[in-house]
Amino acid sequence: MISLADLQRRIASGELSPDDAITQSHAAIEAKEKDVRAFVRHDKSAKAQASGPLRGIAVGIKDIIDTADMPTEMGSEIYRGWQPRADAPVVMMLKRAGATIIGKTTTTAFASRDPTPTLNPHNLGHTPGGSSSGSAAAVGAGMIPLALGTQTGGSVIRPAAYCGAAAIKPSFRMLPTIGVKCYSWALDTVGLFGSRAEDLARGLLAITGRTEFDGIVAAKAPRVGVVRQEFAEAVEPAAEEGLLAAIKAAEKAGASVQTIDLPEAVQEAWRIHPIIQDFEAHRALAWEFDQHHDEIAPMLRESLDATVGLTPKEYDDARRIARRGRRELGELFEGFDVLLTYSAPGVAPAKELASTGSPRYNRLWTLMGNPCVNVPVMKVGGLPIGVQVIARFGNDPGALAAAWFLENALAKSG
Amino acid sequence: MISLADLQRRIASGELSPDDAITQSHAAIEAKEKDVRAFVRHDKSAKAQASGPLRGIAVGIKDIIDTADMPTEMGSEIYRGWQPRADAPVVMMLKRAGATIIGKTTTTAFASRDPTPTLNPHNLGHTPGGSSSGSAAAVGAGMIPLALGTQTGGSVIRPAAYCGAAAIKPSFRMLPTIGVKCYSWALDTVGLFGSRAEDLARGLLAITGRTEFDGIVAAKAPRVGVVRQEFAEAVEPAAEEGLLAAIKAAEKAGASVQTIDLPEAVQEAWRIHPIIQDFEAHRALAWEFDQHHDEIAPMLRESLDATVGLTPKEYDDARRIARRGRRELGELFEGFDVLLTYSAPGVAPAKELASTGSPRYNRLWTLMGNPCVNVPVMKVGGLPIGVQVIARFGNDPGALAAAWFLENALAKSG
Repeated sequence: MISLADLQRRIASGELSPDDAITQSHAAIEAKEKDVRAFVRHDKSAKAQASGPLRGIAVGIKDIIDTADMPTEMGSEIYRGWQPRADAPVVMMLKRAGATIIGKTTTTAFASRDPTPTLNPHNLGHTPGGSSSGSAAAVGAGMIPLALGTQTGGSVIRPAAYCGAAAIKPSFRMLPTIGVKCYSWALDTVGLFGSRAEDLARGLLAITGRTEFDGIVAAKAPRVGVVRQEFAEAVEPAAEEGLLAAIKAAEKAGASVQTIDLPEAVQEAWRIHPIIQDFEAHRALAWEFDQHHDEIAPMLRESLDATVGLTPKEYDDARRIARRGRRELGELFEGFDVLLTYSAPGVAPAKELASTGSPRYNRLWTLMGNPCVNVPVMKVGGLPIGVQVIARFGNDPGALAAAWFLENALAKSG
Repeated sequence: MISLADLQRRIASGELSPDDAITQSHAAIEAKEKDVRAFVRHDKSAKAQASGPLRGIAVGIKDIIDTADMPTEMGSEIYRGWQPRADAPVVMMLKRAGATIIGKTTTTAFASRDPTPTLNPHNLGHTPGGSSSGSAAAVGAGMIPLALGTQTGGSVIRPAAYCGAAAIKPSFRMLPTIGVKCYSWALDTVGLFGSRAEDLARGLLAITGRTEFDGIVAAKAPRVGVVRQEFAEAVEPAAEEGLLAAIKAAEKAGASVQTIDLPEAVQEAWRIHPIIQDFEAHRALAWEFDQHHDEIAPMLRESLDATVGLTPKEYDDARRIARRGRRELGELFEGFDVLLTYSAPGVAPAKELASTGSPRYNRLWTLMGNPCVNVPVMKVGGLPIGVQVIARFGNDPGALAAAWFLENALAKSG
C-alpha cells in the first residue's frame, strides 16, 4: 500500500515532487485496474496541486459522492451519466487541502448490498466487501494512498478489513454528508481509507483543519475492553483468530485488556438499527422507488419491497432505543479508552457467493456514532483479517492513537 | 387565503372536485402573480391526482428544494436552469399524499438574505420577508393552500408573519432535508405555510403519516409563558402591540399567561447561532464560494467573506453551548405548554429598504429545534403582525393545538 504519511514526508523533504507522486498513482492504477476494477472513472488527466498538505496525494471518491467534474452514478442504472452541479463539501475540503481527485470508485447501488464488479486485490476470487468496494480495493491494492467511502451499516470498516487497509469511520457528522447520496440520514457517515492509522490522522487533519488531529502518536498502555457482540451471531474461526492475535499483541505491548459484555440497552440498539436504516431509506430513495422501481438493483429492491410497511411509531421507538443505547455506551467508556471487536465475520467471501459480506459487527457502532478504526491483523488463507478499535463519541484522535498502538504491537509480535 | 382543511372537506363531500380545486389555484396564480411575483415557475399543466388526502391541493415548493420535473435554481445565477435528477423526499411525500406540485416559489439566493422580486400581497410596497419569500407570499395572497419553505434563522416564521399566513417550523429533522440545498445542516428545517393551524396539522398528517397529527383540536386553557427575548434588541411598537393583543385574547379565553425570562444558557445559545450557521455554510457552499465567488448574491457573499476565519474550536464551543441551552430549555417546559414570543421585529419592511427583515426573534428556536407556529394577530397600517407559539421539542401537535386555541381566542376578541 502507499502511505500518505510517507508521501508527505518525502514531498516535504524534496525527495519526491507532488507531480511524481500523482504520476505514480496513475501508473499503479493503470497496472492493477484491469484486475481489481476499483474505479468507475479514472481521470487520467488529473494533476498535482502545487500547495496544501495533501499536494501529491491522489484520492479516490466513492461514486455516491458528488463531483462537479465527473459523473456520479450511485452504482445505479438510474443515475447513468448523471453529472452533479457541485462538488460535495468533503470533496471541496480535500481539494482545498491540495489533494488530487484521481477518480470515482465503485459503489454498490446506492451504497446497499448488490456487488460491484470490483475484486479483492489479495485474491481476485473474492469480494472486496462493500458498499465502499472500490475505495477499499484501490487503497488495499496500493493504487492510491487515500480514498473516501461511506458507512450506513458496515460499508467502510468491513471492506477495509477484507482488503487489508486501515480505515476510519469518524464520529457521526464530523465530516459533512451534504452532496452524498443519502440512504439513512441518521446513519450515513463519510469515512477514509489509508494504509495505516497515521495516514488516516494526517488525512483528517488536512481535510478538517481540526488541531486535535495534529501530533497524534501511538497510545501507551491503553485500557482495552474486548466485546464479541455475541448477539450478532457467531463469527468464523478466522475472525476469532484475528481478534485473539490482536489481544495477545496488545497485552504484550502493555495494554490492559478485559473482556466485557455490552449492556442490554446497547444490544437492543443493535437490534433496531435496521428499522432506522430502512425507514429512512424509504424516504431518502422515495423518488427512485416510485419512479424507477424496476431499475433498482435486485437485492436493494427486495430489501425495500420488504420494508414498505415500517411505521413512524416503529421508527420513533427505535430512535428512543438508540438514544438509551448511546447513553449507556457512553458510561461504559469511563472504564476503557477503547473497545476492541471484530471488523467482519471472517475473511472476504468468495466471489461466487455474490455477497459483499455481513455488516453485523459494524452496524451497532454506526448507529451509536462512535469513531471506529480498522486495524489489519493478519492473513488467513491469503486473505486479510482486521479488528475494529472503537473510542468514545467525539474521541477520534483516541481511536487513531489506540489503533496505532495496536499496529505497532502487531508489527513487533509478527 | 385558501384553507386546506376547507378544501379537504368540500372535496370529501363531493361539493368540489380535485380538478376544480387545482383549477382555482391556477386561476388565482394567473390573477395575482403579475403583482406578487411569488413563483419562479408556475407549471400551468399541473393536474389534480385522483386519490390521497391531498388530492386537489396545489402546493408551491421553495426553489431550493429539488424537483425532478422542474429546474431548481436556488435563487442564484450559479444554478440558472439547473435540473436535479430526483424529487426531494419531502416533495415525494407530498406527491404520495395526492398533492399537486403547482410550481416553484422564489427564494433568496441559497436561502440567505438578498431579496427576491417577490412583493408582499398585503402591500406591494413591502417585502414578503425571506428567505421563503415566494411560499409565504403565495399562501398569504390566496393563490395556493399549501407551500413548503425552509428555515435556518427565521425563514419560515418571519415571512409568514409578514404575509399574514400561518406556518410551522416543525421539530428539527421531522421532515427530511435530503434534496434541499444545504446552508447549515444543524439548522436547516423544512416548514409549511397554510391559512391556519388546522391546515398545517392536516398537511403534516398527510405528508408524514404520523398519527399524532390526526384529530388535533384547539387546546383548552393552555399554560403560556411569554418571552420577549430582550437579548435580541428592541422590537418596534407594532410587534409589541401584536404580542399584547395575543396575550389579552388568550387570557380572556382561559389561558394562564405568565411572563418569564429565559435562562442564561438559552440566551447564550441565541448569541452563538450565527457561529454554527456560518461555519457550516462555509462547508455547505464551499464549491460555490471557491468556484463561483463573484456570482454569489452580494449580501450573502459579503456575509461569507466576513466569516472565512471561523475555526473548528469556535464551532465546537458553540455546539456545546447549544446543547446546554437545549437541556435548560427542556426543563423550562415543565411549567408551560407553550411559549409565546414575537414572530418578527415589526411589520414587513418597505421594499426600498432592500431587506427581508431580521430573523433575530426566530434564530434561537431554530437552533434549539423546537416546533414554532406563526399565528396572525392583527394588521397595523395595513400590514400583518404575527406571534410565535413554541412547544417542547417533538411536541408539534401541542404547538398546533395551542396556535389553534389562540386563533380562536383572537377571532372572538376581534
